[in-house]
This record gives sequence, structure tokens and C-alpha cells, in this order.
Amino acid sequence: MLDEYRSSIDNIDAALIHLLAERFKVTRRVGAHKAAAGMPPADPDREAVQVQRMRELAESAGLDPVFSEKFLRFVIDEVIRHHVVAGDTGDDGN
Amino acid sequence: MLDEYRSSIDNIDAALIHLLAERFKVTRRVGAHKAAAGMPPADPDREAVQVQRMRELAESAGLDPVFSEKFLRFVIDEVIRHHVVAGDTGDDGN
Repeated sequence: MLDEYRSSIDNIDAALIHLLAERFKVTRRVGAHKAAAGMPPADPDREAVQVQRMRELAESAGLDPVFSEKFLRFVIDEVIRHHVVAGDTGDDGN
Repeated sequence: MLDEYRSSIDNIDAALIHLLAERFKVTRRVGAHKAAAGMPPADPDREAVQVQRMRELAESAGLDPVFSEKFLRFVIDEVIRHHVVAGDTGDDGN
């Protein structure tokens, strides 16, 4: 039984990794687009909408909404870290 | 163009939230199973295998392997936090 659960966890984790890889592809494009358009890197209004949406999705999926917000923050922080490493303006890629 | 990117990010985020909800369902079952079977909550060997696997998946998906490891740690910490809040033994649910 434990092996069966673990096999499900492993499948879910593989899907998560692939989705995250895809997400970072898109945020890299967002960063490049904003830079080319001379747009400000951060967009607090957009982020507020994202947080609210994630919380609602989490609730409907039976996931702790607080965790969904922490998760979004964790991912956005990584986007920012990548941009900083890449030497640009700390775009939040959202 | 930005709207199109954001719509992709929103779709990916919704998928991530639903997968995470499903993952927590499974780890809750793992925690209950281990408790019922009198198994120790943590399993460092299993966790080492998970880290290695996540890193390999990340590399093949074009994602930073260090991030994949941080992500796994982030999720496992949340599993532990939930167990602690639920008053049990801090099972790592892996």
C-alpha cells in the first residue's frame, strides 16, 4: 500500500516539475517582453489578483489557501532570483 | 502578448494548485498508513531517492535542479507542518 501511495506521489511530483519548467519558460518570456517594451518589472496589482485567484482555486480543490499563497510567493521569489542572477532588473515575471 | 503569457501562467498555476491538492491527499493517506502500521514517520532513504529523482527530472525538463530540490523541501515542510498542526508525530508523509 505504501509503495502504491509513493508511486502516486512520484507521478504527481513529475507532473509538478514539468509544469514548473513550463511556467519558468513563460515568465522568462514575460521578463524579456517587459524589458523590450520598457515596462516596469513589478506589477503589484497583477500579483494581488494572482494571490486572490490562487486562494479561491485552493479552496475549491481542498487545499489550504494560506499554503497556495505561500506557494505563489515561493515561485515568484524564484523567478526574481533567476532574473537577478541573469543580471537584470529583478522583474517579477508575473 | 503580455495578456497571452499571463493567461498561460494562470492556466499553469491552476494545474499546479490542483496537483498539489491531490499530492496532499496522498500524503495524508501515507501519514495515516504509517501511524496505523506503527512505522517511523520519517524515511531519510526515501527522501534521498526523491531528491535525486526530482533533480534528474528537472534537468531533463530544463528546470534548475537546485530549484527542484528546494521545491521538494518546501512541499515536504508543508506536509510536516500539517501533521504538527493535526497534533501527530511530524510524519514527513513521503
